[in-house]
Amino acid sequence: MDDWANDLQKLWDFAWQKLHRGAADAKSPLHRPAFATAGREGGAEARIVVLRSASPSRHTLEVHTDAASAKVAELVADPRATLLFWDPRSNLQLRARVRVEMVTGDAEAWEQLGEGARMNYGGTPATGTGIGAPDAYDKTPARDRHTRLIGHLQSLDAVYLGPEHRRALYSRDDGFAGTWLAP
Amino acid sequence: MDDWANDLQKLWDFAWQKLHRGAADAKSPLHRPAFATAGREGGAEARIVVLRSASPSRHTLEVHTDAASAKVAELVADPRATLLFWDPRSNLQLRARVRVEMVTGDAEAWEQLGEGARMNYGGTPATGTGIGAPDAYDKTPARDRHTRLIGHLQSLDAVYLGPEHRRALYSRDDGFAGTWLAP
Repeated sequence: MDDWANDLQKLWDFAWQKLHRGAADAKSPLHRPAFATAGREGGAEARIVVLRSASPSRHTLEVHTDAASAKVAELVADPRATLLFWDPRSNLQLRARVRVEMVTGDAEAWEQLGEGARMNYGGTPATGTGIGAPDAYDKTPARDRHTRLIGHLQSLDAVYLGPEHRRALYSRDDGFAGTWLAP
Repeated sequence: MDDWANDLQKLWDFAWQKLHRGAADAKSPLHRPAFATAGREGGAEARIVVLRSASPSRHTLEVHTDAASAKVAELVADPRATLLFWDPRSNLQLRARVRVEMVTGDAEAWEQLGEGARMNYGGTPATGTGIGAPDAYDKTPARDRHTRLIGHLQSLDAVYLGPEHRRALYSRDDGFAGTWLAP
């Protein structure tokens, strides 16, 4: 049983350490979380995203996307999303419920992207449009399509699945002090 | 560029091969998909689940859960969910949109579970209930809490992120014949 999983403060710190590392290290299992949004017609949508930054002081988790993607339309309709992380090494699942702020065409963020990464933003027709052949699309980087999704943490649900199970919920309402839940 | 990613039928077959393997092999990256549901108050919830079976002929994907878990309440309110898979080896993302049928207390499914697995169903207080200490819960296996979530595929969105990108959508409406989308 890992020591950090038995203390609310240690578990919180451990989670943010992992999230921070997940943003910085492409090899971290936390680098590619699932990003779930409410479907436009109900139900739920989910896709893999790349975690770009994690700030323990601002309680933000940031990913980037194309303004023409379905998730942007979904977030305009309902800005509440969940970022889901699973770290098999530490047996830790993190469910980060966030409220998403969107920033499109940020010059500074665009400057920091390599040429390859820029290819993910822009293109014709827009992602998700029906096309007649598998390669009937064109990728042209477009800064005005690049969109930062800044997730402001509302609550973090941490589940530890080690020899014993532990579950804690940290909510914005109580300053993320945390409380234990039955796992 | 992988050959199977350029042909609608081959891509469909490859996806089901991977899903089938994901259910059978605990080491497959498809063994633990994200399971996204609509939140009770809006937004979206997501958690990691274990893929128990995948039937290409019935177009079903099955996972198991505790009847007392939040996702069951969420599915009662809205049975539409998404199972999200990511296979880093083949650069393939699968988004399976399903309509979930729930079967609680299935004797045959219960018989097939080992003693360790049974511990995941049942327990007091119910999962997600606030508790005063990290270990203030009791796990007692209860067959009447074991719930099969049988996801009936409505559509499968396959995204290949190899040297070139490919995206195809297979819908129940057209017998899963498939159509190309801009990636």
